[in-house]
Amino acid sequence: MRHDGPVTSTPAPLSTLSAEDLAARLSAARADYESLKEAGLKLDLTRGKPGADQLDLSNGLLGLPTTYRSADGTDLRNYGGLDGLPELRAIFADLLAVDVASIVAGGNSSLTLMHQALTAMLLKGGPDSPRPWKDEPVVRFVCPVPGYDRHFTMLAELGIEMVSVPMNADGPDVEAVRALVTDDPSVKGMWIVPTYANPTGATCSPEVAEALMSMPTAAPDFRVLWDNAYAVHHLTDEETVSADALGLAAAAGNPNRPILFASTSKITFAGAGVAVLATSPENRAWYLQRLGFASIGPDKLNQLRHVEFFTDADGVRAHMRKHRDLIAPKFGAVEDALASRLDGLGIARWSAPTGGYFVNLDVLDGTATRVVALAKEAGIALTPAGSAFPYGNDPDDRNIRLAPTFPVLSEVQAAMAGVAVCVELAALEKLSA
Amino acid sequence: MRHDGPVTSTPAPLSTLSAEDLAARLSAARADYESLKEAGLKLDLTRGKPGADQLDLSNGLLGLPTTYRSADGTDLRNYGGLDGLPELRAIFADLLAVDVASIVAGGNSSLTLMHQALTAMLLKGGPDSPRPWKDEPVVRFVCPVPGYDRHFTMLAELGIEMVSVPMNADGPDVEAVRALVTDDPSVKGMWIVPTYANPTGATCSPEVAEALMSMPTAAPDFRVLWDNAYAVHHLTDEETVSADALGLAAAAGNPNRPILFASTSKITFAGAGVAVLATSPENRAWYLQRLGFASIGPDKLNQLRHVEFFTDADGVRAHMRKHRDLIAPKFGAVEDALASRLDGLGIARWSAPTGGYFVNLDVLDGTATRVVALAKEAGIALTPAGSAFPYGNDPDDRNIRLAPTFPVLSEVQAAMAGVAVCVELAALEKLSA
Repeated sequence: MRHDGPVTSTPAPLSTLSAEDLAARLSAARADYESLKEAGLKLDLTRGKPGADQLDLSNGLLGLPTTYRSADGTDLRNYGGLDGLPELRAIFADLLAVDVASIVAGGNSSLTLMHQALTAMLLKGGPDSPRPWKDEPVVRFVCPVPGYDRHFTMLAELGIEMVSVPMNADGPDVEAVRALVTDDPSVKGMWIVPTYANPTGATCSPEVAEALMSMPTAAPDFRVLWDNAYAVHHLTDEETVSADALGLAAAAGNPNRPILFASTSKITFAGAGVAVLATSPENRAWYLQRLGFASIGPDKLNQLRHVEFFTDADGVRAHMRKHRDLIAPKFGAVEDALASRLDGLGIARWSAPTGGYFVNLDVLDGTATRVVALAKEAGIALTPAGSAFPYGNDPDDRNIRLAPTFPVLSEVQAAMAGVAVCVELAALEKLSA
Repeated sequence: MRHDGPVTSTPAPLSTLSAEDLAARLSAARADYESLKEAGLKLDLTRGKPGADQLDLSNGLLGLPTTYRSADGTDLRNYGGLDGLPELRAIFADLLAVDVASIVAGGNSSLTLMHQALTAMLLKGGPDSPRPWKDEPVVRFVCPVPGYDRHFTMLAELGIEMVSVPMNADGPDVEAVRALVTDDPSVKGMWIVPTYANPTGATCSPEVAEALMSMPTAAPDFRVLWDNAYAVHHLTDEETVSADALGLAAAAGNPNRPILFASTSKITFAGAGVAVLATSPENRAWYLQRLGFASIGPDKLNQLRHVEFFTDADGVRAHMRKHRDLIAPKFGAVEDALASRLDGLGIARWSAPTGGYFVNLDVLDGTATRVVALAKEAGIALTPAGSAFPYGNDPDDRNIRLAPTFPVLSEVQAAMAGVAVCVELAALEKLSA
């Protein structure tokens, strides 16, 4: 996914430089780095958080709702309604292209829904489990890498072992997944961020999705946790359509395999949005039964607040175009800063995402940890090297996730110019060693 | 807890009636019951839900908050703040008489916090656990009875065995609890609703609380789940003060024993309130670490909404007096209906609660199931007999929980007059058999 943008001149790859030229270049990079430190930056590119201007787009929520009744007259102030407000579920059904009957609308965190689903599989087992996962000798999950750090830390917390497979441009490497799941009943599931993946920006193709939903698995209760966090988070006119995981799985005779997750965390307010899951009728009934022992129902007024704010799915789509207007320039700034310093040097590749929240930066092998340390010393906080891998272990020490949405544009420009300096300096240090 | 109110005449206990008088009385009761059925009621006394007039007291929340920043300037629309808004925690610290540093403020359901705490003990174990509870051969909980049905069904769901002890007028029977916990390390905890208990209305005395917090337990990780759901839910001027579980436990050298739970579900909106837990520093750090893998933080805007609505703890207390004005007459109607038909008959005892949400009705042994069935046939929904006991098993078949808050006053009057007919008819049937 290296971006091949226009370059005005083509510098020589650093690996082809003579020892003398390398020393001169290292010296220059060191000087640039000293200047960077002197600038005294204090910038943060660590988390995929919406910027304040993005949050402002949803300030209309603060005065809502104007009523407390659902369309059918239910008093939403009181207890109940475990599966969520029908009107909100209808909006997500449209956005995710699933049946409204497949959806459960919950609280403000899809991460919580994922944790609930995993915890319930561990303690109770699913409708197709031979036994609760806690009673298995070992439970393993397939983890496409690089991936979302909080998916991996959740599994580690829950004692589920992780096995990595490559995340390709069209989704997880299907042959690598097959090799793990076909014969080993301890492999109980996998993660995937199917659309504009965190962090690579890749989107799972219909073909890959079909393969994942139909492949034979030794575990009868194999689950694909389909975290469609960025389903409608387009950055260009090329608006990617998510693969139909539920439909493909049902058609293949594996209806319970996928559980979809989504939320408005990067649509309205990151901390005060609404989250949903969607799955098969049997899985949904199982999930609601578990949930009924643990909840008095979701905050239906916040769900109504969102329904009033958006009216319908087209309201969400229009709203997302406003987000795009605010954040696409920040992604452009990342591209510009990296390209202007690093193009042609042969020491870095980076993604040019068409959606989502991240730029995936691969630096010279063995230098990612050093780049993050250099940046930190210069006042630029980056996600720790290795974060996008299970157990925080990037075997090549080359992957860095960049999250440009939270700082303002000028900060992104300053931070990324600094990151480019750090990338070059770390590479020169390594090549000179 | 039989209420000894004023009675204008003292009828003879039914058990002293001659066979002839009994037959005549049974015949009269049957006629009354037929009239009741003909009235075609459709009333529900099953759940402790606030009435619409109570919810109306909090409609001011619908237009809040007026800002999105905390006192320290944090943007509450974004991610983060796992332990909750400090201003909200301060209000609960005052109401619960605990240190603000002990509190975590979460989402809309204290039941969810309880479930999270239990699930974490099962999957991970606490800071003082020899191993996760899931790896113990068996885990047992002490359950004061009658108690809250959802406490018991949660344990059943999670595979935790239940052992009953009597709930006395001053709290759980301490000697019965001691007998269970002293030598058996499989007894890992107990439930208690310390103030205006569900359903008996009893309040745990400081002496009982001190005994529960200081008693030796074979399990080093023994937990008291202290569900203070009705801490400020007074029905009379006699405003009960909850025992200081955290302070007593710390003083006794068992700081991690209690975990307090509370919420605004019966203060503001039942489904859209805020819930908190409070516990020792070590337990709190442990809980937040678990929570960090499962949540992006609570809905801090809803927490701010509540802070703006109440301003401070005195705002909550003033608000609760408005609730009292609305629901005390409903509790009075329960008392009046039961007393006017059943006083002196020797077939029923009921509580006269000074707070909380329930009236505890004990009917003639062996007739509770019949009373509930008779009421159902007459269009009056009561909580199933036995609900207030583990596994739904009331060994004496005599306990019925009455929840008078949700229906309007005239409905409570009609429903309770009907219940009294059913109680008498079931008793006469049994005595005549």
